[in-house]
Amino acid sequence: MNWTNDLTQLLKIKYPIIQAPMLGVTTPEMVAAVSNEGGLGSLPVGLQSPEKALELIRKTKSLTAKPFAVNLFAHDLPEIDPAAISELQDRLLVIAREHGLDYNPVEIEKIRHYSYREQIEIIIAEHVPVVSFTFGVIDQESIRRFHEAGILLIGTATSVREAQHLESIGIDVITAQGIEAGGHRGTFLFDEPLPQVGSMSLIPQVTDQVKVPVLAAGGIMDGRSIKAAMILGALGVQVGSAFLRSDESLGIDVYKDAVADSADTETVLTRAFSGRWARGIRNTFHDEVEKLNLDYPAYPLLNDLTVPMRTASQKSQNKEFTTLWAGQSARLAKSKSSAEIFRDLVIETEELLKLK
Amino acid sequence: MNWTNDLTQLLKIKYPIIQAPMLGVTTPEMVAAVSNEGGLGSLPVGLQSPEKALELIRKTKSLTAKPFAVNLFAHDLPEIDPAAISELQDRLLVIAREHGLDYNPVEIEKIRHYSYREQIEIIIAEHVPVVSFTFGVIDQESIRRFHEAGILLIGTATSVREAQHLESIGIDVITAQGIEAGGHRGTFLFDEPLPQVGSMSLIPQVTDQVKVPVLAAGGIMDGRSIKAAMILGALGVQVGSAFLRSDESLGIDVYKDAVADSADTETVLTRAFSGRWARGIRNTFHDEVEKLNLDYPAYPLLNDLTVPMRTASQKSQNKEFTTLWAGQSARLAKSKSSAEIFRDLVIETEELLKLK
Repeated sequence: MNWTNDLTQLLKIKYPIIQAPMLGVTTPEMVAAVSNEGGLGSLPVGLQSPEKALELIRKTKSLTAKPFAVNLFAHDLPEIDPAAISELQDRLLVIAREHGLDYNPVEIEKIRHYSYREQIEIIIAEHVPVVSFTFGVIDQESIRRFHEAGILLIGTATSVREAQHLESIGIDVITAQGIEAGGHRGTFLFDEPLPQVGSMSLIPQVTDQVKVPVLAAGGIMDGRSIKAAMILGALGVQVGSAFLRSDESLGIDVYKDAVADSADTETVLTRAFSGRWARGIRNTFHDEVEKLNLDYPAYPLLNDLTVPMRTASQKSQNKEFTTLWAGQSARLAKSKSSAEIFRDLVIETEELLKLK
Repeated sequence: MNWTNDLTQLLKIKYPIIQAPMLGVTTPEMVAAVSNEGGLGSLPVGLQSPEKALELIRKTKSLTAKPFAVNLFAHDLPEIDPAAISELQDRLLVIAREHGLDYNPVEIEKIRHYSYREQIEIIIAEHVPVVSFTFGVIDQESIRRFHEAGILLIGTATSVREAQHLESIGIDVITAQGIEAGGHRGTFLFDEPLPQVGSMSLIPQVTDQVKVPVLAAGGIMDGRSIKAAMILGALGVQVGSAFLRSDESLGIDVYKDAVADSADTETVLTRAFSGRWARGIRNTFHDEVEKLNLDYPAYPLLNDLTVPMRTASQKSQNKEFTTLWAGQSARLAKSKSSAEIFRDLVIETEELLKLK
């Protein structure tokens, strides 16, 4: 089996291993380490102001001359109903304070949302070679602008139907996100129940149904899962949880420890933190919000409200009120530098690729 | 990679491919076809009287001289509360009749349950070489009796913890059932939410944590998924949905057609038919029972009540009131004889095993 394929040629990388964009965990240092080792790092700039996005891109470019991807959040901006948001915030504050966590809530009138459209000009000007997106699909005008600038586009699909949609609108590479994956689900077609397809079923069916290169995401942690994904038809993989415990991760110590100790059954799909489905290790906040049976507001309104709570939780090394995004294989994550983690993936996979 | 391994030696089979026991679908003809081709067929006898079990075993033995497995349901027998069951039956009848399906309900006083313990003597006397079980764990006395008779035991685990439990009580082979799998979940430790671990995460973590041979189940449909499962650490696979459309399947035509047309996202986990979680193609009965928000009775009481409804539904080629068990890759199932389906799996896998 070949390590070098259409995908590595397209992305101009040595190994078809993409580090997943993990907002709140990924740093420019992590992105650069992966790209410098011959993979593709992914820098998340979702929710960021254009100025902040520019700063992050420039920081990454200062650390690597290799290709990396910038990841956008492609959702529409929500209407803000101050009364409803204020009521929701009050309910969250009650939970936090009942459990002894004190923090200053968001000033609702100061909430400011940025569209991915505000970030496009910067990305083109900075000659970023690859743009990935999730939380929706970028519009046709944006696709045209990126393609005119020679930028490759990677979209995320959680079902065959989503993959076919992405291919039909001209997306160059599709990440097939199995239910094993940590963090937010990339689901964007909402007329059916949330797709929960395991990688063993999703990868072969997606690769059967689309012609563009497919990346496998979800449960990819080592040489075994990389080779397995490629046998199922993926030309490459996207790896997230494997970098959670890396030196370059923003994860606090108690989060990293929870990842190391996590059983295969320990993560849950929850909307508690952001209003969008995501997989993470279950904690107190998840359980308390589930009880409320919320009518979740459009993304990222709940996310806005939980930011100060999560920050306070992190500052006090309390893992009960912050996101502990992790996949179902997260316990296999190693505590090393991102470069070492990446090299281990390469060595393990090359060993297995030598074997029949 | 080797086709012949500890598992094939242990089970005395040529290829490490086990046909999953599918009560209501699997026939002695299917079991014998798979065993005759060098795999291991599995004959389900759960819920059957000892006499019926004996008849099925003898029928299978008349069709093959090769090893096959008998599959037991290892649940405890439930107490019957006639008033509660009668009330539940009335609610189901309302649903069926609202949708124009007429059938004679169960006479509750005639419900008779059989324990797997009543089937043990027959299995030993008939020299069945392998016994698999699900819906619970067989007791220590039964394990001892089977082992004394030289019978190998296969248990099902849906989490690492369940796999470790099975190994600790002396089970010889463990089937790791990923969330992709069709039919009933093998979950037996109920002190946590239903495990929903995808095969890509479950297989490597189970094989890392137990020493006994592991079979992968869930999403295994072709050479790709068989080789992928073996790379993830399984020594063999259990294949169910691939045989749903076989000539030897008891599935009615509309069920087989629904399987062929099923999208990756089309199955749901439901308790509607039996009270136990199982994956099948969503239909009217599933949706209607979900609305009732039932307090599900112990297995197999709800199953008893839905049997006549399912039978009536099947007789009228109506797929809305019968079980359409199917995995997330079921659309890859072929309409051929079981022997041809098995040979295709072998040929595809051998082709892939030749490649690096």
